[in-house]
Amino acid sequence: MDIFEKLLKHMGPIGEHSDRAHGYFAFPKLEGEIGPRMKFRGKEKIVWSLNNYLGLANHPEVRATDAQAAAEFGLAAPMGARMMTGNTNYHEQLERELSDYMGKEDTTLVNYGYQGFMSAIDAICNRRDVIVYDAEAHACLIDGLRLHQGHRYVFKHNDIEDLEKQLKRATEMVKTSGGGILVITEGVFGMAGDQGKLKEIAALKEVYEFRLMVDDAHGFGTMGKTGAGTGEEQGVQDQIDLLFNTFAKSGASIGGFISGDKAIINYLRYNMRSQIFAKSLPMPIVIGHLKRVQLMRKHPEFKEKLWANVRKLQQGLKDRGFNIGHTNSPVTPIYLQGDIPEATAMCLDLRENYNIFCSIVVYPVIPKGQIIYRIIPTAAHSDEDIELTLKAFTETKQKLDAKVYEVAEIPMV
Amino acid sequence: MDIFEKLLKHMGPIGEHSDRAHGYFAFPKLEGEIGPRMKFRGKEKIVWSLNNYLGLANHPEVRATDAQAAAEFGLAAPMGARMMTGNTNYHEQLERELSDYMGKEDTTLVNYGYQGFMSAIDAICNRRDVIVYDAEAHACLIDGLRLHQGHRYVFKHNDIEDLEKQLKRATEMVKTSGGGILVITEGVFGMAGDQGKLKEIAALKEVYEFRLMVDDAHGFGTMGKTGAGTGEEQGVQDQIDLLFNTFAKSGASIGGFISGDKAIINYLRYNMRSQIFAKSLPMPIVIGHLKRVQLMRKHPEFKEKLWANVRKLQQGLKDRGFNIGHTNSPVTPIYLQGDIPEATAMCLDLRENYNIFCSIVVYPVIPKGQIIYRIIPTAAHSDEDIELTLKAFTETKQKLDAKVYEVAEIPMV
Repeated sequence: MDIFEKLLKHMGPIGEHSDRAHGYFAFPKLEGEIGPRMKFRGKEKIVWSLNNYLGLANHPEVRATDAQAAAEFGLAAPMGARMMTGNTNYHEQLERELSDYMGKEDTTLVNYGYQGFMSAIDAICNRRDVIVYDAEAHACLIDGLRLHQGHRYVFKHNDIEDLEKQLKRATEMVKTSGGGILVITEGVFGMAGDQGKLKEIAALKEVYEFRLMVDDAHGFGTMGKTGAGTGEEQGVQDQIDLLFNTFAKSGASIGGFISGDKAIINYLRYNMRSQIFAKSLPMPIVIGHLKRVQLMRKHPEFKEKLWANVRKLQQGLKDRGFNIGHTNSPVTPIYLQGDIPEATAMCLDLRENYNIFCSIVVYPVIPKGQIIYRIIPTAAHSDEDIELTLKAFTETKQKLDAKVYEVAEIPMV
Repeated sequence: MDIFEKLLKHMGPIGEHSDRAHGYFAFPKLEGEIGPRMKFRGKEKIVWSLNNYLGLANHPEVRATDAQAAAEFGLAAPMGARMMTGNTNYHEQLERELSDYMGKEDTTLVNYGYQGFMSAIDAICNRRDVIVYDAEAHACLIDGLRLHQGHRYVFKHNDIEDLEKQLKRATEMVKTSGGGILVITEGVFGMAGDQGKLKEIAALKEVYEFRLMVDDAHGFGTMGKTGAGTGEEQGVQDQIDLLFNTFAKSGASIGGFISGDKAIINYLRYNMRSQIFAKSLPMPIVIGHLKRVQLMRKHPEFKEKLWANVRKLQQGLKDRGFNIGHTNSPVTPIYLQGDIPEATAMCLDLRENYNIFCSIVVYPVIPKGQIIYRIIPTAAHSDEDIELTLKAFTETKQKLDAKVYEVAEIPMV
C-alpha cells in the first residue's frame, strides 16, 4: 500500500476541515503590530488569542533592542550548535540572569521550547526510570514521554490522591528496575488555566523519592510576586528540581530555558540531543531576551496591569453567569454547550459582527457537545476591550441558548 | 534511587570532559562577524567549522534585510503556532518561492529543522508502516524514528544491496500489517560528505512500493545546477517524495522546510505536532529567508566560488597524501590515526600555533584510535586561507606521524 494514499484518506482532526477552514479558523492571518487590536481580513478585531501576557511584544524598548541587535549581528550569528560553534557571551549572560531571576543555581537555554523539553526528558530518563505525569500535560511533554523506553504512569489531572497511587506503583517499580522517579507537571495548564498543585506535589517528597520537573510556560512572567512563576506563587520554587520555561508566551519571542542545580543543568547542557544536533538561538533573539527579562523584573506594573485585566474579565464573565472553570491564572476558558455547527456559527458571529477574535476548541480535542473559548488577557488590553468582549459573549451566548445558531449550513466567509 | 544522582555519575561522552574542555573544545566562543576569519580567545583564527557554505551570513543584502525586517516587525511577531495565530503573507510567500525553487508543488515551513523533521516522520507513519533508513542518518531522523511504533529496518550506509534486502523484508512486513513503506536517507551526509545514492534508491521504486524522504540539509544551496540540492545534482529531484531542507547551513539562519506534492504537504501542515504546538518562525527570520533564497537563485557565482574552494582544498589535501574518504560534496573530512591525547595535542597545536579553528571528532563518536577533522569550506574563504590550512595540516600531520603529540599531559589553555 502507498503510505501517502493511506494518509490522505484521513487528513487528521483539523486537516479534514481544511477546505473550508483554511485561512479563517485554521492558519488565519492577524496583521499589524502585535497587540489587543489587530486586523483580520482587513478589519480591526479585538484579539484574545496571543500569549503576549505582559504586552512586551510591542514595547518600545523591546522593539528598539530587537532592531538594534539585528542590525549589529544579523540573524545568522552565531552559526552552529551551541556546543560546537554557537556559544556567545550573550547566551551565557542570559543564562546567568535567568538563574538569578528564577532563584536557581544554573540555567541552560534551549533553541526551541518544544524540542528542548522533549530532549530534557530524554536526557534524564533511561529505561530503568519511571516518569509520573499529569494527564493534561502539554504535547511537548507527551512527545518527550514517547521517547522514553521505561515505564510511565499518568495521574488524573491535578489529583493528588491519584498521584500518590502512581508514586506508590513507581516506587515499587524502581525497587526492581534500579531506576529513579521523575514527576512532571505544569505550573499553569494552558487550556483550563488552573495551576498545577505544585505545593501538594512537593510535599510528597517527604514520603517518596522523586525529582520534580515543571513546565511553567504560562507562569513565567505572570505568576508569583516577581513573576518568577508558579513555584514562586505557591512558595515552592526551591522544590522544583527542573524548571522549564519558554519565551514564547510572556517573553514574546521563541526559545526556552531550563533552570536547576548546577550539576544537573551542566549534565543537560552536554546531553540534550536537540541542542547538540541543532543550531543555537540567533544572537538578536538572545539579546532581545535579555531586554525582555530586564523589563519583566524592572516593571512589576506590567504584571499588575495584566492581573487587573484578568480580574476584570474573569469577574465580568462570572457575574454574567459564564462557566470559566477553575482557572487561577490569566488563561480564561469559557465553557459552553453546543455542537460543531453551532460553535462555528457562534465563532463567526463573534468574529464578524462583534469583531472579537479568540481561539475556540471543539470535538475531537474535547468531547462532543462541548465548546471552549480560550481567552488570553494581556497587560495591553483596555477596559473598553474587556467591556466590548463581555457584551459580545453575553449576546452570543443568549443566541446560542436560544438555538439561533442551529443552522444546517455554515455560511463560510 | 535519586534519578539525578545516577545521572551525575556519568556526565555523558562529552560531558565527562567538560571540566577541561568547556570553553575550548566544547562551547567555544567565536567572535566577530561570521566568516572565514573570526576571533577565538582574542586571536584571529581561520575558521572551518561554520556551515555558511555560500557566505550568505554576512552578505550585505542579507544583513540589510535582517536589520530592516527586525526594525519593521520586531522579533515577537507573529505570535502563536502557525495554525492558530502565527500565519502571515510572508510565510506563505516563502513557501511558494521555495516550492518553485525546489521544483515541487508545495512546501511547508517548519520552525526548527530538528523538531520539524521528527514530527514529519511521526505524522506520516503509524504502527503499521515500516521505515527503512540509512545507518548514518542524522540525529533528528533517529529521534523521529524513536517516536515510530512500527517496524524500522536500517540499511548499511549507502549500500544499495542491503537497502534492497531491507526493502524485501519491509514489503513482506506491510503485506500483513497493511501499512506502507517510507525510505529515509540524506542528500549529503554531514560527517563524511558523501552523497546519498538517491538515483539508485529512486530506481528501486520500479520494483518496490515506497515513498522516499530525503534530508538534504547540506545539499540545499550547494548541490545541483541551481543549488536546488542533491536531487537536482543526481537528476532525481522529482523522485523525492518528501524533500526536507534546513536554513541552518547554506541559508545561514534557523528553521527548515519540507517540499512535495500538494496533498501530502497539506497533510503535514495540519498534522505535525511540533508545528501545531509550538510557535511559528518570527517574521524577520522569514523575510530574511526570502532574501537568502533570492540571492541563492540570482547568484550562481556564490556556489561556483564555493566549489572552486572545495576543489582547491580537497585536491590540495589529496596531493599531500591526506585521506579525505569518499566525499563528493563540500563537506571535507580528514581521516587520521591517533589516540585521544594525541588528537587533543594536535588540535591545540593547530588552533594555537597555526590559528586554524576546525571541528574534531574522536572516540566515542568514532572508534578508538581514529581522528576525524571536519573542514567546511565556504565561498567566503580565500586562497590564502586554503594555503595556510594545507600547510598547517601538512606540518601537524608530520608531527603526529613522528609521535610528537604523544604527550603524557595535555597543556590545557
